[in-house]
Amino acid sequence: MEKTDFISFIYQYQHRLCNLIEQEDGLATFGTDEWTRPEGGGGITKILENGSLIEKAGVNTSVVRGPVTDVLAKQLQSRSAKEFFACGASVVIHPLSPMIPTAHANFRYFEMYDERGTIVDRWFGGGCDLTPYYLFEDDVRHFHTMLQRSCDRSDSELYPKFKKQCDEYFFNKHRNENRGVGGIFYDYVRPDKMNGDDYWLDFSKSSADAFVDAYFPIVERRRNEKYSERHVRWQEIRRGRYVEFNLIHDRGTLFGLRSGGRTESILMSLPPRARFEYNDSPPVGSDEERLVSVLKPQAHGTT
Amino acid sequence: MEKTDFISFIYQYQHRLCNLIEQEDGLATFGTDEWTRPEGGGGITKILENGSLIEKAGVNTSVVRGPVTDVLAKQLQSRSAKEFFACGASVVIHPLSPMIPTAHANFRYFEMYDERGTIVDRWFGGGCDLTPYYLFEDDVRHFHTMLQRSCDRSDSELYPKFKKQCDEYFFNKHRNENRGVGGIFYDYVRPDKMNGDDYWLDFSKSSADAFVDAYFPIVERRRNEKYSERHVRWQEIRRGRYVEFNLIHDRGTLFGLRSGGRTESILMSLPPRARFEYNDSPPVGSDEERLVSVLKPQAHGTT
Repeated sequence: MEKTDFISFIYQYQHRLCNLIEQEDGLATFGTDEWTRPEGGGGITKILENGSLIEKAGVNTSVVRGPVTDVLAKQLQSRSAKEFFACGASVVIHPLSPMIPTAHANFRYFEMYDERGTIVDRWFGGGCDLTPYYLFEDDVRHFHTMLQRSCDRSDSELYPKFKKQCDEYFFNKHRNENRGVGGIFYDYVRPDKMNGDDYWLDFSKSSADAFVDAYFPIVERRRNEKYSERHVRWQEIRRGRYVEFNLIHDRGTLFGLRSGGRTESILMSLPPRARFEYNDSPPVGSDEERLVSVLKPQAHGTT
Repeated sequence: MEKTDFISFIYQYQHRLCNLIEQEDGLATFGTDEWTRPEGGGGITKILENGSLIEKAGVNTSVVRGPVTDVLAKQLQSRSAKEFFACGASVVIHPLSPMIPTAHANFRYFEMYDERGTIVDRWFGGGCDLTPYYLFEDDVRHFHTMLQRSCDRSDSELYPKFKKQCDEYFFNKHRNENRGVGGIFYDYVRPDKMNGDDYWLDFSKSSADAFVDAYFPIVERRRNEKYSERHVRWQEIRRGRYVEFNLIHDRGTLFGLRSGGRTESILMSLPPRARFEYNDSPPVGSDEERLVSVLKPQAHGTT
């Protein structure tokens, strides 16, 4: 594969997802911001806000190229490379209803070059994950089943490995609590002679399709679920945890902000509303407590 | 001075401030959580929520002692010390009304010991600062005047220096914007033969008193100011920025979370509600725009 293949994939995916989300919402439409970096490259930031069903959604693409600075070399664990190329699509969907989970997906591709412009390393990363406010076990099972099916088409060892990595990555260490109920997460996967040049491109595309099949049926299923003030308050509390993860732990967010990325595009992932109350603990036996108990690390095997 | 003098000061200050805030509010009262660390020490976390005037206030004390771990040595830039002692009081007040600023104060004292328990270094840190949602220039001037008067009693060179440090510290680099309209911030100040042993203890006490005189008259002045939904939305947007600073940049918060501090006590500083909207920009000529323009770094000289 050529890097242009991955670029085509992410722009097509952005287009498809934005159409899907607009259809699903039926009211709001995406606004578009095209941006360029002085150092080379740019992207398209697409944001939908205050829909009838979707409170905030961001679907971003970025295609950037530049010299490997010190901060970059440290993050990428790559010392010999002089130039890098990175491209990716990033999706976050925050529905209005606390009964519909927040969802996130990201697919990215990197190339590193020496001083003569020869590729010295390249890798893929990505994944998707689900963050419910209330636990519908069928939904969680459906989400994981769709991802597993897609992974299994490449190799049956991938899903358990990438599911585990997802649980490990989206973890609020300072609360000993997962951000959500998981999904798949992979990084630094490389083409080799065994699996062939298109293997991870195809895997990325298949995972991106699987995300659509995994998430949108849940939105459909829960869109008419009733809820009250109590559920909205809890949604805001949990969204506070989402903010904590993204600003304290998320490597992509922190790297983006530190390396001079476009702040508004990076922080589009933050939920529209959040609430921070001291020492909130849901009543014993409540639906809220049931969610929290599933997010504790010992519960990993249950989904 | 002995470290016990600083400990007495912070507990007395906590007691005094909680009484003041309760009186000011007239409805809500502080809840108390006493906590201890297995490694030694503990503190008192006092939180008031959902008052008639104060939406969320935290007044915390902590007195801790322990071995200098690697993460600690790196943060404290101290290689020879084997054991540390740290104590401090931390105050954050988030009023309900967008017309009343959020305020923050912190006073702390450190000692470092060698293997024989001899003090090898000790220092003071602290300060206080104001984060308004709407700009009342008289209030900002009053706040700074009270701090300057207090600093000037020790040395007229301190206020300009500590004011500058405050602007530099409470800065959202990723937005090129100050968190608020400043105050004073000092760190690693040490007793020496010139200024005498009690100099910085007295300065800490004086600054703590000045914070009371600087902030509470503003609360009084603005408590009956009218506001609407529009002002509340803006307050939530700005509180989003407060969250960004505390979770991305604040050394104390990040150090506390990484070194295994008590998460709920550390994150009490977060505002009760926050809002994250894509690329929000206030209308030209609006009160909201006026605030933002003052928070840009070039405006430092104006308050």
